[in-house]
Amino acid sequence: MTNPNHAQRRALLRAALVRSGVDALLITDLINVRYLTGFTGSNAALLVVDSDDETGPADTVIGTAGDGREGPGDPRTLFCTDGRYTTQAESEVPDLPRLIARPCDLALVSRAPEGIVGFEARSVSVADHGAQLAAAAGTGRSIELKSTTALVETLRAVKDEGEIEALRHACAVADHALAELIAADGIRPGRTERQVGLDLDQRMRELGADDPAFETIVAAGPNSAIPHHRPTSAVLATGDFVKLDFGARVAGYHSDMTRTLVLGEPADWQREIYDLVHDAQLAGRLACTIGATGDAIDAASRTVIAEAGYGPQFAHGLGHGVGLQIHEAPSLARQSPSIMVPDMCVTVEPGVYLPGRGGVRIEDSGVIRVDGYHVLTQTSKELVVLA
Amino acid sequence: MTNPNHAQRRALLRAALVRSGVDALLITDLINVRYLTGFTGSNAALLVVDSDDETGPADTVIGTAGDGREGPGDPRTLFCTDGRYTTQAESEVPDLPRLIARPCDLALVSRAPEGIVGFEARSVSVADHGAQLAAAAGTGRSIELKSTTALVETLRAVKDEGEIEALRHACAVADHALAELIAADGIRPGRTERQVGLDLDQRMRELGADDPAFETIVAAGPNSAIPHHRPTSAVLATGDFVKLDFGARVAGYHSDMTRTLVLGEPADWQREIYDLVHDAQLAGRLACTIGATGDAIDAASRTVIAEAGYGPQFAHGLGHGVGLQIHEAPSLARQSPSIMVPDMCVTVEPGVYLPGRGGVRIEDSGVIRVDGYHVLTQTSKELVVLA
Repeated sequence: MTNPNHAQRRALLRAALVRSGVDALLITDLINVRYLTGFTGSNAALLVVDSDDETGPADTVIGTAGDGREGPGDPRTLFCTDGRYTTQAESEVPDLPRLIARPCDLALVSRAPEGIVGFEARSVSVADHGAQLAAAAGTGRSIELKSTTALVETLRAVKDEGEIEALRHACAVADHALAELIAADGIRPGRTERQVGLDLDQRMRELGADDPAFETIVAAGPNSAIPHHRPTSAVLATGDFVKLDFGARVAGYHSDMTRTLVLGEPADWQREIYDLVHDAQLAGRLACTIGATGDAIDAASRTVIAEAGYGPQFAHGLGHGVGLQIHEAPSLARQSPSIMVPDMCVTVEPGVYLPGRGGVRIEDSGVIRVDGYHVLTQTSKELVVLA
Repeated sequence: MTNPNHAQRRALLRAALVRSGVDALLITDLINVRYLTGFTGSNAALLVVDSDDETGPADTVIGTAGDGREGPGDPRTLFCTDGRYTTQAESEVPDLPRLIARPCDLALVSRAPEGIVGFEARSVSVADHGAQLAAAAGTGRSIELKSTTALVETLRAVKDEGEIEALRHACAVADHALAELIAADGIRPGRTERQVGLDLDQRMRELGADDPAFETIVAAGPNSAIPHHRPTSAVLATGDFVKLDFGARVAGYHSDMTRTLVLGEPADWQREIYDLVHDAQLAGRLACTIGATGDAIDAASRTVIAEAGYGPQFAHGLGHGVGLQIHEAPSLARQSPSIMVPDMCVTVEPGVYLPGRGGVRIEDSGVIRVDGYHVLTQTSKELVVLA
């Protein structure tokens, strides 16, 4: 199960450590641990030490290395989980020294090298940090804990080909589930939002999703004007917009797609805002070029809507990164300074919402390449009219 | 939607604040916010001020009160969420002054009274705490932030009747789903663990669960010897134990139940460990009396297994509280000092696991009353033999 990408990611992280002025990083965010090691259990931590340092007392490190490569005997990386996951860790993390201990963060702090050890300030609680400080002091060595933010998250924003393939798969599951749902006449007057949502979720699971990527949104009629709406017992009726915002989680990766359909012949106002959002979504995708900022991409799409007079009816950001989390870096939104680089994976999802009447959002997940934005969600964006 | 229990819970919390030496508490854990207010959105915080203090600058508090009761004009409690939830908060939290701002924690800190303001050290990250300290300093008033732990969690361990009714409902959904699954011959040789799990989950949803309470465990044959096993493509076969550990989440409350069935006539070793775990589970339930410690209850059940020579094969704790979280206070485990009081809701779940062969766990959720443990999960605990 060794994935060479994990070692590559840890090598990139080491370069980031140097730039951040820390000698080692304690990684306690489980998503980040998974990204760097492949471990999928519910309790673990990782200590990554900059190249020339060494971890603590020799008896606490499994084996020795010294040939420059990482390996089970490498003192530059130490993985920790608890006894429930001994077997799973052997299988998922065969390439690293593994420590079985609890709590994992304290076990790793007590084995850290002297110097500055970064921790993830956004995911370590004040209580856990207090215990980590005590563990560092208890070593009798000179260990300074230093706050860091987003070191791993920044790496995660740029996907490798294995991750893009995983996202493509997750998007395909969502595409197929929606196609099946429509073919089975699953979106029809008389069904409730909740029935449609359960049906769609179950189809994704049967097609291989571990679960929906997030709580599926099914919003019919006036409810479609609520940007984030939970499915209710509201009954679909002829004349309704039906907005579906959903995704599949497959092998840890999340797809995200929104389509808005109409039941029966659309009214003029429905065609008008649908076409407008459709054009704005295209403008957003076209603006996803290397070097563009998240702010500029958001503006390219938003301007289309604002010039049609619906600016105030588009009150959320344009998009966000997708990957091991449903929302991650980079952000496509007003004042987002994120600069696009190849292989970032982002959503593009403008919307126009008319309270009391209905709303439209159209969203793709895709990957930014040197020649532009490649859509991963393949479902048509033409207005689907369900008789 | 006003639930008088929420005001009652906040009154109990105020008494706890006095004992803890803080003048106010900033609650940022969303489960705790829900418990104290009924709010179910994904972003909110709450400031609860001890009775005689007042919140900050008058213009930041909605209305005025002064008659001793809480209310929309009461300066002793301030709820905050962001603009996405304005309507939802009006509906779910009609009885409190509501602030619409982002980030919620900083908006509340800036409106806190002078004095010692507690924060929840287990759920506030180091990064957020830094921002809270800056916000407190920015008020120009004398606000000291003080670490607290488990003030609300301790209250949550003792359920009111509305919560017990909610748990009873969640347990009934799980009972009915399993009965349906068995009646439909859904647990049979040839099906995979994953198929059985998806089937059970879907039945719970159709019976009204928002979702499974946690990732359903279906473990067949040798996999049943793994205490926490994820459903795989392993195929059920005659002679297998099939261990099902699952629950329903209904209206925020989590049920938790394990049953172990056998496919075909049980072998002697299977009857032996089944009967043993059955006896140990009964001993655990009988030990759930008012005044008993979590440690003593664990021991009462564990002793039955240890005396039969299977002590090492029962390597986990006996049980845990259930409620708005699937694992919460109190703990029934070795060295647990928790003392049982009426209306605590806990699981009792001993197990014996024989690696490579199979394992048995039997688990109920129930409520501790003055006359003993009342089981909420009603499914029979006699060994079910599926032909």
